[in-house]
Amino acid sequence: MATLKVPAQIPSPVEDSEQLRKAFQGWGTDEGSIINILAHRNATQRRLIREAYSATYGEDIIKDLDKELSSDFERAVVLWILDPAERDAFLVNEATKRLTSNNWVILEIASTRSSLDLFKAKQAYHARFRRSLEEDVAYHTSGDIRKLLVPLVSIFRYEGDEVNMTLAKSEAKLLHEKIADKAYNHEDLIRILTTRSKAQLRATLNHYNNEFGNAINKDLKTDPKDEYLKLLRAAIKGLTYPEKYFAKHLRLAINKLGTDEWALTRVVTTRAEVDLQRIGEEYQRRNSVPLQRAIANDTSGDYKRMLLALAGHED
Amino acid sequence: MATLKVPAQIPSPVEDSEQLRKAFQGWGTDEGSIINILAHRNATQRRLIREAYSATYGEDIIKDLDKELSSDFERAVVLWILDPAERDAFLVNEATKRLTSNNWVILEIASTRSSLDLFKAKQAYHARFRRSLEEDVAYHTSGDIRKLLVPLVSIFRYEGDEVNMTLAKSEAKLLHEKIADKAYNHEDLIRILTTRSKAQLRATLNHYNNEFGNAINKDLKTDPKDEYLKLLRAAIKGLTYPEKYFAKHLRLAINKLGTDEWALTRVVTTRAEVDLQRIGEEYQRRNSVPLQRAIANDTSGDYKRMLLALAGHED
Repeated sequence: MATLKVPAQIPSPVEDSEQLRKAFQGWGTDEGSIINILAHRNATQRRLIREAYSATYGEDIIKDLDKELSSDFERAVVLWILDPAERDAFLVNEATKRLTSNNWVILEIASTRSSLDLFKAKQAYHARFRRSLEEDVAYHTSGDIRKLLVPLVSIFRYEGDEVNMTLAKSEAKLLHEKIADKAYNHEDLIRILTTRSKAQLRATLNHYNNEFGNAINKDLKTDPKDEYLKLLRAAIKGLTYPEKYFAKHLRLAINKLGTDEWALTRVVTTRAEVDLQRIGEEYQRRNSVPLQRAIANDTSGDYKRMLLALAGHED
Repeated sequence: MATLKVPAQIPSPVEDSEQLRKAFQGWGTDEGSIINILAHRNATQRRLIREAYSATYGEDIIKDLDKELSSDFERAVVLWILDPAERDAFLVNEATKRLTSNNWVILEIASTRSSLDLFKAKQAYHARFRRSLEEDVAYHTSGDIRKLLVPLVSIFRYEGDEVNMTLAKSEAKLLHEKIADKAYNHEDLIRILTTRSKAQLRATLNHYNNEFGNAINKDLKTDPKDEYLKLLRAAIKGLTYPEKYFAKHLRLAINKLGTDEWALTRVVTTRAEVDLQRIGEEYQRRNSVPLQRAIANDTSGDYKRMLLALAGHED
């Protein structure tokens, strides 16, 4: 469930874009207005505001936001205003660049989006970067991490609920054999995780757990510092329990010495319209503190107000 | 250019489906009528006929065709009547089954379709087989052939014309190094072929040819019998010169001791509405005989009439 709150009655996109224009003008910027408007509009409404703004003022609102805002608040507003597909394309592209390289972002988007949303991100990537998302990920990565991430971003995964139990059993056994041999990068292990439907994968991993006594991620924790193994475990979590995946990554971002604002902003802006409610419940269960309070304790100013608004905080 | 000929005036889908129903009834089947109608309707028109037939008679026309027709003629008519995306999904599925296993079909579809057409085939695959095309290809294949075919079917390739010449040069050099080392299955070689846009790939391979003195496919012919190398060369041909690829595979199908009807039917039915005209020109240039005559010499009966009608033969 989404945490985004949209008022029952909202101004027209033209009125919203006029208010935003006013917020940019004069002495200082009216950040409160920007949050009041943008943090309470859904993806379609935000797109219409961008279009109205561009039609009326002949400028891209993102360029104006870039001029008027700064730092973490700017990043939160800009990521939020983007269409979800465009935002995912932007995040993956950034994650394949040398200075902002980040395999975790690629992994997160590849494993937690629906097949159609991932496909739309690929279309948005073509349109914006004139290359394919897959080629940039493949070019940017190497070794075992490439072997895992490239198929993970490439697949158009089946999303039905059907489960083949015979296959689940045989593939659970195969996974167990490879893990027992410490062949964590074996092509069949990667094939199973990167190509099977999420429902099928859950059946396979449940059988693994029942039959071999451990959750697969426990058996994959032999070297807690190995980045490939960390990504592999995160992929499994992201594919099978996305709310747990996000709750954990929010916790890591918040508890870090000097909060990881990029991760925090990314998770809040990408999930506010999807499942941030469920993620917050998972967060509270695991950390005994409400997500909104954890965010409030770790952030400040307009950035804090923006994130809390997206997280559904009542003023 | 397509070879399919659709009359300027055609009956309504309901009238067409009535005529087809008549052709199935009574003593014997009226194959001539079936060819006259179906071989002269485009994909949309054929879909409307299927819908009208099903609405009027409560039956799937494909089941009736299956009852009334047989052998190569049946296969040609059934493949032809399918929507292109559904047909590609059907062909790939068949190619991943034990008794009809065929890596060439997978390779052909993956390398010669547009990105969007390949994506539509994946959607059709989900709908019809309740699994993903990629998982079946990955499960069915192994070793180097899997390493090549899985990324090839998975990628949503960029289709713009932009070329990065610096990249073309560096990747041509990389390809040449790997080939000189006989590392034909090297991950970078596969990455370049399976992820770069067709325009970029052509630039890279042109540079390869200019700089190193041979076309890449010549350098990949060190072991003419090795199936992986054959598939690799075919992928390069299919990606960069699809008409040549198809002309060659038609030649192989026709010249085979005992024509390869499956290949002939597949190429004619999948290309008649796309580029069979250009393929025919290429065929004639290379074999000094018109494609239609080659087909006529090697086939007979209704099957021959069906293929020739699709190949644009005037009665």
